[in-house]
Amino acid sequence: MSSIPHRSIDIDANRLWDSLMQMAEVGPSPNGGSRRLAMTPEDADGRRLLLDWVEALGCTWQRDKAGNLFIRRAGREDHLPPVSMGSHLDTQPLGGRFDGVLGVLAGLEVLRSLHDNAITTRRPLSLIVWTNEEGSRFAPAMGGSGVWTGRLDEATFFGASDSKGVTLGEAIAACGEAGDLALGEPELDAYFELHIEQGPVLEEQGHPLGIVTGVQGIRWYDLSLRGQSAHAGPTPMSYRRDPLLAATAMIQRMREVVMADPDGAARLTVGDFQVVEPSRNVVPGEVRLLLDLRHVSDERLDALDAELERLARDAADAEGVELTFERRWHSPVTPFDDALIDSLREAVKARELDAPCMMSGAGHDAVHLSHVTPTVMIFVPCRDGISHNEAEYAEPEHCALGTQLLCDAVLARAERD
Amino acid sequence: MSSIPHRSIDIDANRLWDSLMQMAEVGPSPNGGSRRLAMTPEDADGRRLLLDWVEALGCTWQRDKAGNLFIRRAGREDHLPPVSMGSHLDTQPLGGRFDGVLGVLAGLEVLRSLHDNAITTRRPLSLIVWTNEEGSRFAPAMGGSGVWTGRLDEATFFGASDSKGVTLGEAIAACGEAGDLALGEPELDAYFELHIEQGPVLEEQGHPLGIVTGVQGIRWYDLSLRGQSAHAGPTPMSYRRDPLLAATAMIQRMREVVMADPDGAARLTVGDFQVVEPSRNVVPGEVRLLLDLRHVSDERLDALDAELERLARDAADAEGVELTFERRWHSPVTPFDDALIDSLREAVKARELDAPCMMSGAGHDAVHLSHVTPTVMIFVPCRDGISHNEAEYAEPEHCALGTQLLCDAVLARAERD
Repeated sequence: MSSIPHRSIDIDANRLWDSLMQMAEVGPSPNGGSRRLAMTPEDADGRRLLLDWVEALGCTWQRDKAGNLFIRRAGREDHLPPVSMGSHLDTQPLGGRFDGVLGVLAGLEVLRSLHDNAITTRRPLSLIVWTNEEGSRFAPAMGGSGVWTGRLDEATFFGASDSKGVTLGEAIAACGEAGDLALGEPELDAYFELHIEQGPVLEEQGHPLGIVTGVQGIRWYDLSLRGQSAHAGPTPMSYRRDPLLAATAMIQRMREVVMADPDGAARLTVGDFQVVEPSRNVVPGEVRLLLDLRHVSDERLDALDAELERLARDAADAEGVELTFERRWHSPVTPFDDALIDSLREAVKARELDAPCMMSGAGHDAVHLSHVTPTVMIFVPCRDGISHNEAEYAEPEHCALGTQLLCDAVLARAERD
Repeated sequence: MSSIPHRSIDIDANRLWDSLMQMAEVGPSPNGGSRRLAMTPEDADGRRLLLDWVEALGCTWQRDKAGNLFIRRAGREDHLPPVSMGSHLDTQPLGGRFDGVLGVLAGLEVLRSLHDNAITTRRPLSLIVWTNEEGSRFAPAMGGSGVWTGRLDEATFFGASDSKGVTLGEAIAACGEAGDLALGEPELDAYFELHIEQGPVLEEQGHPLGIVTGVQGIRWYDLSLRGQSAHAGPTPMSYRRDPLLAATAMIQRMREVVMADPDGAARLTVGDFQVVEPSRNVVPGEVRLLLDLRHVSDERLDALDAELERLARDAADAEGVELTFERRWHSPVTPFDDALIDSLREAVKARELDAPCMMSGAGHDAVHLSHVTPTVMIFVPCRDGISHNEAEYAEPEHCALGTQLLCDAVLARAERD
């Protein structure tokens, strides 16, 4: 159990909002969002603005060769590992003002509030800006935190190239964003990340905050079903081997399984359904599906995985079509740190706030961090669950509450015995 | 009731097969099929070969401005309207040796057999080669018979352009295939068309022939279902408005309706199922479907049409997505001529053959002809139901039986009082 901080301080909601709006003007997009693709001049400008702000607070900073930026506020016992906060400043091509940015500028607001109150925490603090979280210009996403934690190999990270053939390594150098800090340094005491939910649950349920206890497991599948292409007219239904009908049958049955999940936590997405050589009056010869299956429990995911394959084989057999069932990728359920979750619960209670525990459906830098340091996340609602979109919006009040919760929990963590 | 011909003659199966194989060498395709796209030099060469053969029999010929070719064999009462046979010589880009060609060369074999037996029929005979039946180079298909019967307007027919911008009118002129005969001339006494089935039923049921009593009704639909695109991860199933799940539910329910058809004659084809802006881990925002619905009864088609729309609306409502339901095109059930059907039945009986009555699923020039003259078709099986493919194949025995039936019925029709 963490202890309640001896003293709690209040963050400045207006200053936080002003910073968010100022940052949004760095690389503004046509319809009120931001465009700061990873390691472009706009991304570097955003980092520079942040550094101007933190330098004014007397913070120091370092970068590693991946361009990850570590801002440091000294502690009373400055040799101890820092308590860290962080997220990312890069955006989608037509991105919003909050995804990633909120977590970084909430950390800035924590540093500013401590500065205003002349508080030096027992442990030092670190505010981290991870490189290329979005993955839009360079795949994969969450690259900076991945390579820093050793969960993504350096060749993949630095060698990733954009649509013009520029590698991420080249882009980091061109932006002057490479530094001397070793990957994996400094050792962290804990990692806190505040983020917009990017889903509809908090808004729909009327909660201003959520304590994120972990990240769902994800499994990706490529399916191909191959039957016999035939003329629509002369071929009676009973003579057909129609892979499209097999695919729709499989999807409907799997949907029933997912909807009947005891936890209500199973998620099935058919992101693509492609007819090979489509023609209105020809029975398709082949269809290809891309599926995404998620759950908060690996055991349930195992069961859903087996059920998906069984239903796919049954549907293919019933229709007399051939099935190729490929498991493309998976990410196991990632639990966050119990002590940090408890510290957030206590801070919520102390402030008399309303913040249910929930699992994240999306990936975040925090997933990588959780493998090397105690980690937790805080969610705030975003309007209509929309993100990766210029229309992305979070209420000023929610941004402020999330930042206050971050501040309280970080202070408690930094001060603990 | 037609009368049995006073004398019946036997066609020459080997000569028929030799002619089919010779014609296939005009515009040969790489894997044993034919490539005679409409109004190309290969198409003109095929027509020229046919004309060489019929001129040797003393037949005359004329063309109309659409390039439809009318070969004429004089009758004893030569002022009477001719009894006609016909089909087409143009093929798909990688077409087979039988689709269309069989009907034309069977007509040739009838003319040759009459010539061998020194028979002059009471009525004159006509062998017709229709322009651009396939529709591969110039849309729509069945163009020559369409414009000749007045069911396709001349502007659409002559103005249709190929992928290089050449119009069908220009191509007809370039091939020297335009003639002086007026569209709609000559008046016909009857029209017989022998064709491969292009479906699996005769082969699967072991029949060497089929008497075609009409053509199925066809209805085409364009459906769009629009929900809310969302991240696969953070969006619980209950918050989604997933148009793909609505579409698959609708298809499965409609499939059940079609499979339960009392006549076993309903046919549902979803020829395309397109996710707009597909991405594996994004709930689709929109899916678009192209559907083809067929039945041998217009009343049943009306009922199926209403059921399709109801199921689509129900599925859309259940998922909270918007539906656009467009009826794009329809072709009513086309019944063929009862007297001609009877004449075929009698000829089948006289020869002790096995030829069930059946409806055609595909469109043919005979559909247009049926609106202006008594019309009927004969089907022969094709291997595995495959056509529009170089592998298309019909057994020599079946080609010969179909041609014999054509000969018997045409002779009876031409001789009748």
